Amino acid sequence: MATEQPVRRVAVALFDGFTVLDVYGPVQAFASCRVMKPDGTPHRLYQIFTVGERPGPVPAGEGTATVAEHAFADAPLYDILLIPGGFGTRRAANDQGFLKQLAAASEQATVTTTVCTGSALLARTGLLDGRPATSNKLAWEWVVQQGPRVRWQRRARWVDDGNVLTSSGVSAGIDMALSLVERLNGREMALASARNMEYVWNSDPANDPFG
Amino acid sequence: MATEQPVRRVAVALFDGFTVLDVYGPVQAFASCRVMKPDGTPHRLYQIFTVGERPGPVPAGEGTATVAEHAFADAPLYDILLIPGGFGTRRAANDQGFLKQLAAASEQATVTTTVCTGSALLARTGLLDGRPATSNKLAWEWVVQQGPRVRWQRRARWVDDGNVLTSSGVSAGIDMALSLVERLNGREMALASARNMEYVWNSDPANDPFG
Repeated sequence: MATEQPVRRVAVALFDGFTVLDVYGPVQAFASCRVMKPDGTPHRLYQIFTVGERPGPVPAGEGTATVAEHAFADAPLYDILLIPGGFGTRRAANDQGFLKQLAAASEQATVTTTVCTGSALLARTGLLDGRPATSNKLAWEWVVQQGPRVRWQRRARWVDDGNVLTSSGVSAGIDMALSLVERLNGREMALASARNMEYVWNSDPANDPFG
Repeated sequence: MATEQPVRRVAVALFDGFTVLDVYGPVQAFASCRVMKPDGTPHRLYQIFTVGERPGPVPAGEGTATVAEHAFADAPLYDILLIPGGFGTRRAANDQGFLKQLAAASEQATVTTTVCTGSALLARTGLLDGRPATSNKLAWEWVVQQGPRVRWQRRARWVDDGNVLTSSGVSAGIDMALSLVERLNGREMALASARNMEYVWNSDPANDPFG
């Protein structure tokens, strides 16, 4: 029965000036993988928490703040790491302390996912060297400079390289997250999650309307 | 010149158990209306802040917490109110103190927008009586019971009733918010916002794939 599926843990890496939909699109996709219990509350197949340089509110680029529950160093174990992008990546990409923690966080995850310019941060750690990846199209020139040894693919809704998935800008993270759900829980659950969000899933990574 | 367009203020109403994409889809759509300044930072046409019963972290249904900056009573002025839905609406819909504050918050706004079961909360205040509105399809039976005098329209991506816009489930809020941008800033800015999000805008409220 579906309620017996394992619950996977998703850690969301926050930094000043992250983009909200980069985080909350995938978060919603993972959290919408659920089986309703008899009392009308959801049993969710993904448990989500946030990490940052220190616990406490982290301002997004859009004017709201999300609470980082844990410091990177003190985070519980997790299966999936989600790295958002945003205008804040310009500063974060040159913050060696942050990049070191991000690299360690990625190495601990079974799967690392990035949205938008989040792939530029992962590129700066060196962990994308020699690997295929994509990113936001509007910031493309800056992004590719952050990882000269990355095999950047401009035209892709997302790039699945096994234990690293990188997606294009902002809303593309939803499509990427659903593809990971498909891998881990099957296509039916990915379609159910999309339906729960009333979202029309673009399930083809090669279908990039903005590439 | 575009930088001279007025900046509008969006207040996001938070409550325990709100759904994250209900908030952050529209927030991203509003915040992606921007004109880039010479220094590479965005001049945004919408300023967004959060309100709740009291200032401080508000847990969403998906495991993260967003900071409410202001209590309803102490919120600065705003043009647009955004009311999300979520599993937390079941409790909020029976919280008379919360509903009273929500009604006052709506009456102060030039335009009130709801996403998903957020329309059930607005219905409970009486402010939707006699007006057309829509909501989440999965929770439809419960929602319509919250407003027996509302002219519920099941098949609609969103319903635009002038100073009240109600949208269908979760991701539909993005389409609705872009339609409000179209009204306030023109179609070019709505398309630019969608492009900035790499989002394929469903700009037809009658095109409801889940209705």
